[in-house]
Amino acid sequence: MTKLRVHNLAVSLDGFATGEGQSFETPFGHAQHRLMQWFFPTRTFVSMSGHEDEAVGAGTRGVDDAFAAATGDRIGVEIMGRRKFGPQLGPWEDESWRGWWGEEPPFHTPVVVLTHHERPDLVVGETTFLFRDLSAVDALSFATSLADGLDIRLGGGPTTVRQFLEADLVDHLHVVVVPILLGRGVRLWDGLEGLEERFTVEVTASPSGVVHYVFARKPQ
Amino acid sequence: MTKLRVHNLAVSLDGFATGEGQSFETPFGHAQHRLMQWFFPTRTFVSMSGHEDEAVGAGTRGVDDAFAAATGDRIGVEIMGRRKFGPQLGPWEDESWRGWWGEEPPFHTPVVVLTHHERPDLVVGETTFLFRDLSAVDALSFATSLADGLDIRLGGGPTTVRQFLEADLVDHLHVVVVPILLGRGVRLWDGLEGLEERFTVEVTASPSGVVHYVFARKPQ
Ligand SMILES: NC(=O)c1ccc[n+]([C@@H]2O[C@H](COP(=O)([O-])OP(=O)(O)OC[C@H]3O[C@@H](n4cnc5c(N)ncnc54)[C@H](OP(=O)(O)O)[C@@H]3O)[C@@H](O)[C@H]2O)c1
Ligand SMILES: NC(=O)c1ccc[n+]([C@@H]2O[C@H](COP(=O)([O-])OP(=O)(O)OC[C@H]3O[C@@H](n4cnc5c(N)ncnc54)[C@H](OP(=O)(O)O)[C@@H]3O)[C@@H](O)[C@H]2O)c1
Repeated sequence: MTKLRVHNLAVSLDGFATGEGQSFETPFGHAQHRLMQWFFPTRTFVSMSGHEDEAVGAGTRGVDDAFAAATGDRIGVEIMGRRKFGPQLGPWEDESWRGWWGEEPPFHTPVVVLTHHERPDLVVGETTFLFRDLSAVDALSFATSLADGLDIRLGGGPTTVRQFLEADLVDHLHVVVVPILLGRGVRLWDGLEGLEERFTVEVTASPSGVVHYVFARKPQ
Repeated sequence: MTKLRVHNLAVSLDGFATGEGQSFETPFGHAQHRLMQWFFPTRTFVSMSGHEDEAVGAGTRGVDDAFAAATGDRIGVEIMGRRKFGPQLGPWEDESWRGWWGEEPPFHTPVVVLTHHERPDLVVGETTFLFRDLSAVDALSFATSLADGLDIRLGGGPTTVRQFLEADLVDHLHVVVVPILLGRGVRLWDGLEGLEERFTVEVTASPSGVVHYVFARKPQ
């Protein structure tokens, strides 16, 4: 059974998964890198960032890394929102933007980018971005058809994750609460009253100061 | 030095310290007892609730109790908002309401109740409620004059705690994050962007599923 999984979704203690004022220079707006600070020292991030030969075995192997490492396990496709792909609003002015990730994005699978403004498929390295105007349910069916029997990662941002949670399509939700108050940005939890009733919740505090919440959907 | 301390302030994962629709029957509105569920099994609560002779030694002694027990330590006075005292809005229709706590409230000290609608001092058991229309700074001075060299507890609710945090008057802030989504009510964290810069933060997850945050003000 293909599962829909969210991993490493970072929110501030006041519930914002991204700051205000996203731009090409600041993918997280005024939050800057603060939501992902816990992630950078992990072995998983260090090896992803491509310097592995310079730093074999480098990076932490504690609880933050244990969670970070699960992100890619048995994933056949990712679904993301259009504002995770880039800061553009409305119709694409041109199609030169190829995402934040350079010429070898870390996905290495098809990535369904949800948008009301479709554009041609885009191949970057081993990743193919497919821009589709689909409801959450239809996006899940489409992604399942591409997943080759593996699971689907729901990659964010918060607006997109919220849609799939509202439609009760998410099987595994890993949220990382970072002990900062952003004050403004896009909230993750809005409109999700009573979510905990549909999930079992496991909570782990890390010495780094973040708290890992794992919501696992109860059998139906 | 008299310190201003907040203890056991419970918020939902989406940041609400009380639900919507407070009434005489439901002091926490639609949140019901869910924000305080972690507290009821503790030895501290069990002994407060007056059945200690029936249940000597009863109640848990884990991390939730360790935090709960610190609430009363060296406290000479409490400051609370008017809606912690009762659900009334606007001018008092009469003065028959004596708070939620029966004839022996758990405070046993003076309690300054902040309100724009003053009324005569009210003695209930060993507690005296003093209804005062004061700014946060002036309330702190007034409470200090009553504290007899001990500390001051800032008892909530969220509207009141926020005022004192905004004015940077809080020395110790213990918040308990409960893994439920209330969806509506009164938020604690609004307007407090960057609060963490003024505090050191310590985080402890309890097996009960709640997470204890201790914000200790940095030396100035
Ligand atoms: N905290 C984290 O761990 C994390 C993770 C990922 C991303 N982020 C950050 O989150 C931000 C992006 O999140 P966001 O909530 O602003 O936006 P988002 O969820 O990435 O994208 C939302 C946009 O995607 C399109 N869309 C979503 N669902 C759709 C559907 N069913 N059908 C058609 N179009 C759909 C719409 O754009 P159009 O109508 O314009 O097409 C919508 O405005 C970025 O700052 C990113 O860096 C944070
Ligand atoms: N989660 C927890 O751990 C916790 C702890 C305590 C309480 N609670 C709950 O929180 C709720 C109450 O919180 P709340 O945020 O709604 O209200 P609150 O903070 O208890 O009281 C706010 C009211 O107090 C008065 N007030 C506050 N500051 C004042 C000032 N500087 N000068 C004059 N008047 C002032 C105003 O009332 P007027 O203008 O009407 O006089 C204001 O509307 C209740 O449901 C209670 O059960 C929860």
